[in-house]
Amino acid sequence: MESNPTPVAISASTKPSGLQAILDAAARIAPHAQVTPVLHASSLDALAGCELHFKCENLQRMGAFKFRGACNAVFSLSESDAARGVVTQSSGNHGAALALAARLRGIAAQVVVPDNASTVKRAAIERYGARIVNCAPNMAARDAATAALLERTGAELVHPFADPRVIAGQGTVALELLRQCGTLDALVAPVGGGGLMSGCAIAARALSPHMKLWGAEPSAACDAHDSLQAGRLITDRTPQTICDGLRGHLAPITFGILRSHLDGILLADEDEIIAAMRLIWERLKIVVEPSAAVGLAVVLRERERFAGQCVGIVLSGGNMDISSL
Amino acid sequence: MESNPTPVAISASTKPSGLQAILDAAARIAPHAQVTPVLHASSLDALAGCELHFKCENLQRMGAFKFRGACNAVFSLSESDAARGVVTQSSGNHGAALALAARLRGIAAQVVVPDNASTVKRAAIERYGARIVNCAPNMAARDAATAALLERTGAELVHPFADPRVIAGQGTVALELLRQCGTLDALVAPVGGGGLMSGCAIAARALSPHMKLWGAEPSAACDAHDSLQAGRLITDRTPQTICDGLRGHLAPITFGILRSHLDGILLADEDEIIAAMRLIWERLKIVVEPSAAVGLAVVLRERERFAGQCVGIVLSGGNMDISSL
Repeated sequence: MESNPTPVAISASTKPSGLQAILDAAARIAPHAQVTPVLHASSLDALAGCELHFKCENLQRMGAFKFRGACNAVFSLSESDAARGVVTQSSGNHGAALALAARLRGIAAQVVVPDNASTVKRAAIERYGARIVNCAPNMAARDAATAALLERTGAELVHPFADPRVIAGQGTVALELLRQCGTLDALVAPVGGGGLMSGCAIAARALSPHMKLWGAEPSAACDAHDSLQAGRLITDRTPQTICDGLRGHLAPITFGILRSHLDGILLADEDEIIAAMRLIWERLKIVVEPSAAVGLAVVLRERERFAGQCVGIVLSGGNMDISSL
Repeated sequence: MESNPTPVAISASTKPSGLQAILDAAARIAPHAQVTPVLHASSLDALAGCELHFKCENLQRMGAFKFRGACNAVFSLSESDAARGVVTQSSGNHGAALALAARLRGIAAQVVVPDNASTVKRAAIERYGARIVNCAPNMAARDAATAALLERTGAELVHPFADPRVIAGQGTVALELLRQCGTLDALVAPVGGGGLMSGCAIAARALSPHMKLWGAEPSAACDAHDSLQAGRLITDRTPQTICDGLRGHLAPITFGILRSHLDGILLADEDEIIAAMRLIWERLKIVVEPSAAVGLAVVLRERERFAGQCVGIVLSGGNMDISSL
């Protein structure tokens, strides 16, 4: 008997990759996540000289796209793995997202949080019922605390971005946006650890191969930009930027995906990011955190590049301390 | 031959009233207005002790429900009437709404604006292309300036709320909300001149007769509350409230509609309104102006009244000066 061709459906469901993993994630998170609206403002179009479609992940549950990835990871676990709970390290939205996803599945979550994390994000992690484990604000302390927790509890690590389940979940942002808007000329999303941009790039390349894919980074935290330029992963920086969600660096998995798929990473200065954030508040009437404004900031900075195009911009989250304004 | 029954469709289209006028308005404004999202936050439900559905008219075009009424009025005009342009008096959102609706129809708009109007709202009126006519900040000066304009131009007056076309347009808010949410136990909307609440009350009473209908007013501007209590229209107050959209008083037409349909008007103090506004910014991640927060403020103040209910709250607008925070 000749060897049969691999049964595609089965192999896709046992080890999904690429678009299939994102389609699976979309189905898995659908009972829990919001289909977020896409907003538009003609006054911003006039300012940018192109047509802007804002995917409002600040209106996602717990206020950021991070819920998609965390939810997909938590609901991917077998019953026996889930019973041992989940652990992560996060200074912000991913910690709260994992806490909420774990609560929805009825399992325990523990989050290693550096001492200098935003109080608003710390409060959200606690409000969603996770246990916080404090650590010093450096990578070594964070990794040590996480490793100790994993060893003691046997819980499952759900990394904020270096996890294919998380990346697939974040990819549902682009899947949804393309369903809502049809074809776009370009997609712009912020890059911190690269999970959001990686998932979106996989979905977008599969569904709309000719769309330009641009990451957006603060000039003050341009490690991903420089990594792609240099062709090697740069991880030895400690960036100072108002964008607390974009201070991390890429992991090997996200570096590889962005290197394969991105047209480039565009940069914006701190004052441009703050001005873009204010425009979003005033014209779209929604609250976004600084990290979420970097996409609009790069589009406004590079008007010629986007002139006349139809551009999707991912607004990644809205969790910030209002009184810090 | 016996007399035929009146052909309902024709009589309804020549002189629409009640629900039919609102259904007509919905069809008329559909090409121009947004279907605004309904947002929900479990943390706010927990705080209020009931299930809250927020109808986000801050995400309507030009940032407020006022666009619905102005758009319905402008697109109801015959070609010859439209050609003479439109006029209104407004210190805020209605002026901008009429300016935008007129621009969409390609006709002239002039807005009589008191000297003390918010700079943000004044700027919006100008940005949408209307001509501003300044007047002293009192009713007599406003009425005189408006009358002079009407006489000189022959333009059509589109009053901010004492106009059945405007009321019908605002009623599409409730129509849409009920389509989006199904049955609700109660609907809460702010009351200034009463156009929004009047339109919503007509739609809600027709579609969902058992739903409770509550107006919401600042304690510091409780003229509508007192008018309904006294059974006569009170118009001699000059209220001091942070809610710049709710400083006006009812007109005879809105007084009559609210008197027939409302279950009551609930009040909230200034500090309660500010706290509610902050909660909306933080938990729903959207920008609302103070006037829009009074609905949540009264629900949080009267927890027993709404306990366990499914409550729709209209967030009326989001036009404010961010730097005034």
